[in-house]
Amino acid sequence: MKKAESPLDINLLGADEQSRRLARVYAAMRSGGMEAALVRDLANIYYLTGRVFRGFIYISEALAAPLYFVRQPNHLCGEGLHMVRKPEEIAPLLAAAGIDAARPVALELDSVSYSESLRLARAFGMEAPEANLSPAMRTARAVKTPREQELIRESGVRHTLAYSRIPHLYQEGMTDIEFQIEIERVSRLEGCLGIFRVGGDDMELFMGNVLTGHNADTPSPYDFAMGGRGLDPSIPVGADGTLIKPGIPVMVDVNGDYTGYMTDMTRCFVAGEPAEEAVRANELSVAICGELAAMMIPGTPARDLYARAALMAQQAGMADNFMGHRSHAGFVGHGVGIQINELPVIAPRSKDIIEAGNVIALEPKFVIPGLGAVGIENTYIVTEQGGVSVTTAPQGIIKLD
Amino acid sequence: MKKAESPLDINLLGADEQSRRLARVYAAMRSGGMEAALVRDLANIYYLTGRVFRGFIYISEALAAPLYFVRQPNHLCGEGLHMVRKPEEIAPLLAAAGIDAARPVALELDSVSYSESLRLARAFGMEAPEANLSPAMRTARAVKTPREQELIRESGVRHTLAYSRIPHLYQEGMTDIEFQIEIERVSRLEGCLGIFRVGGDDMELFMGNVLTGHNADTPSPYDFAMGGRGLDPSIPVGADGTLIKPGIPVMVDVNGDYTGYMTDMTRCFVAGEPAEEAVRANELSVAICGELAAMMIPGTPARDLYARAALMAQQAGMADNFMGHRSHAGFVGHGVGIQINELPVIAPRSKDIIEAGNVIALEPKFVIPGLGAVGIENTYIVTEQGGVSVTTAPQGIIKLD
Repeated sequence: MKKAESPLDINLLGADEQSRRLARVYAAMRSGGMEAALVRDLANIYYLTGRVFRGFIYISEALAAPLYFVRQPNHLCGEGLHMVRKPEEIAPLLAAAGIDAARPVALELDSVSYSESLRLARAFGMEAPEANLSPAMRTARAVKTPREQELIRESGVRHTLAYSRIPHLYQEGMTDIEFQIEIERVSRLEGCLGIFRVGGDDMELFMGNVLTGHNADTPSPYDFAMGGRGLDPSIPVGADGTLIKPGIPVMVDVNGDYTGYMTDMTRCFVAGEPAEEAVRANELSVAICGELAAMMIPGTPARDLYARAALMAQQAGMADNFMGHRSHAGFVGHGVGIQINELPVIAPRSKDIIEAGNVIALEPKFVIPGLGAVGIENTYIVTEQGGVSVTTAPQGIIKLD
Repeated sequence: MKKAESPLDINLLGADEQSRRLARVYAAMRSGGMEAALVRDLANIYYLTGRVFRGFIYISEALAAPLYFVRQPNHLCGEGLHMVRKPEEIAPLLAAAGIDAARPVALELDSVSYSESLRLARAFGMEAPEANLSPAMRTARAVKTPREQELIRESGVRHTLAYSRIPHLYQEGMTDIEFQIEIERVSRLEGCLGIFRVGGDDMELFMGNVLTGHNADTPSPYDFAMGGRGLDPSIPVGADGTLIKPGIPVMVDVNGDYTGYMTDMTRCFVAGEPAEEAVRANELSVAICGELAAMMIPGTPARDLYARAALMAQQAGMADNFMGHRSHAGFVGHGVGIQINELPVIAPRSKDIIEAGNVIALEPKFVIPGLGAVGIENTYIVTEQGGVSVTTAPQGIIKLD
């Protein structure tokens, strides 16, 4: 891979890797009838340059390379970079460069606010936004380039290393949150960036979700697989101060963002001997992951994976506990990469088709009254031969002492 | 204060506190010519109910109480609560309750995406959004109720307690990020919720910013007071692995969200003896805070505070170092509460006027080449007599050993 010339080059990816990603974006734009677009969402800016800045990227297949309109920071360099204070400066700069900016310019209408979308549209002489770039960006990002897969594998290795330290962190008498804090610490020491990037503005989580006992059965306001009451009504998710008890599993689902690309991994831990019911539910979760990973062949409808998982849960008599108990999550897996909720979605009515290069977190989990949450989660890279897990901690319920 | 009947009541604030907040919102809506609104932003939902849920609150002064349209979670109760799967169900439910939903319904156009805003408008029979609720919500939230001030004071106490443990966390040979991780841990053990709530979608920070040495002079893509290179280009802010050296200050600005309401506090620490220049800059920062706190009398234009701070920096010969060096932040303070970037803004062209009940973080900071970032930050509640700080750690440069 050709690297950027300097660490201050606005394109940190190098020309080849950027072209590879742009080719995916342009293909998706073409099928949506879009010729030009203005990118402004931080996650998409990171996708297209390998760095985060505040500003805009103007992309069009008609151009040899993207043009950058940067508000902050003020110390970057590179071809096609213009410093701007406001988006109204962009169209005149394009015109000065001989680029006809009058064509409809697609915007990220699913993530940029109404007020700003309108302002950007008007800055390009449109009365209102005319084309939505967001679905094209989601489609493009759903298939990871080899370089992206490399970063995901690296996150998986470090995520797994951090998890290998978890059994040594437990001390008798700990609450879920005390245990979680020690897991956060070793994750951070292992290099976890901490940031839990979620697309959209209606899911919030700090650094992960640690659940034990009855708390796992608290319905969630968020679209996460598992809930938990949390420590405060302002962030009602996860650990709530429940004492960790012998025999009761502790489900650990902590941030795997070590490289800008996240892996998602869940494991269950237990002090003392796990209940037989917990062991069986965990084995079922492992079996579902194995089955679905084998089914993750390019061309497979994502909903077939969900249906298979639901069927296995049902055949095991666990349908009522599958993906929750008092409330149920509507999916068993999701794409993951720069954000935690990428395509494809492994859900009953998903229209996504599995493709080589998808990166998919599978999390067939169960909530058992009296025991809490049980199950595992792995992140898989889809190959022609099926899904290959990059999160490789032991899959059984792991002893804490 | 009357509390909610049950911990599952959708309104956790109790009727009186909710009415107090609604009165502020309605006043702001009235001056914007708005009669009814649909609230969907999580921070605003938290403001109006004391809890977070996914869904919508329909508010109108014509109604005795708000109506709640909840998507998730599924276990809440309370008067006026309807479970919905999509926003299109709301208008028919209002009609069934005899409420004319045909009037323009204001939406949070500065935070809700273009796509969703359009969908919500159409669900109310409008062709496009007609009224923007966001400025009214910002105005309402800028003045905190006594109960909100109580939560902020409580965060301040716990934030200060966590900071009192910082000097004991340092070990020789630590890097900035190693030091930060230990600060994160003691903050979390003290009850910090971790979540760093930022309004808008173009600032990201994990749990705080710890800066030492030359790293403080790295320009930031974000609109924070200070920058830092960060550990990875995907989140270019804060600690970058710089070794902490004797005599070089370490600026600690770590999350103060202990109650759903945040305090913002910065202190500088040093191993060994601080350079004279650092001591002087820190004293100047303390002096500016004191001066501005005394000026924080209701009726004072926010820009006068900024002008005074800039003048003091200039008179001390520190204009080039004020709020950065290679790049400068354009403000010296900001409102804080549920989010880190509330009103008023203490900036040169701010039109905000200081009001009693504002909660303002002041952060007159300096970046000195060779030494790094120096200065303090406190969070003040505005009273008739001026600002009263709720962040009470010692203000001098604090010894680490």
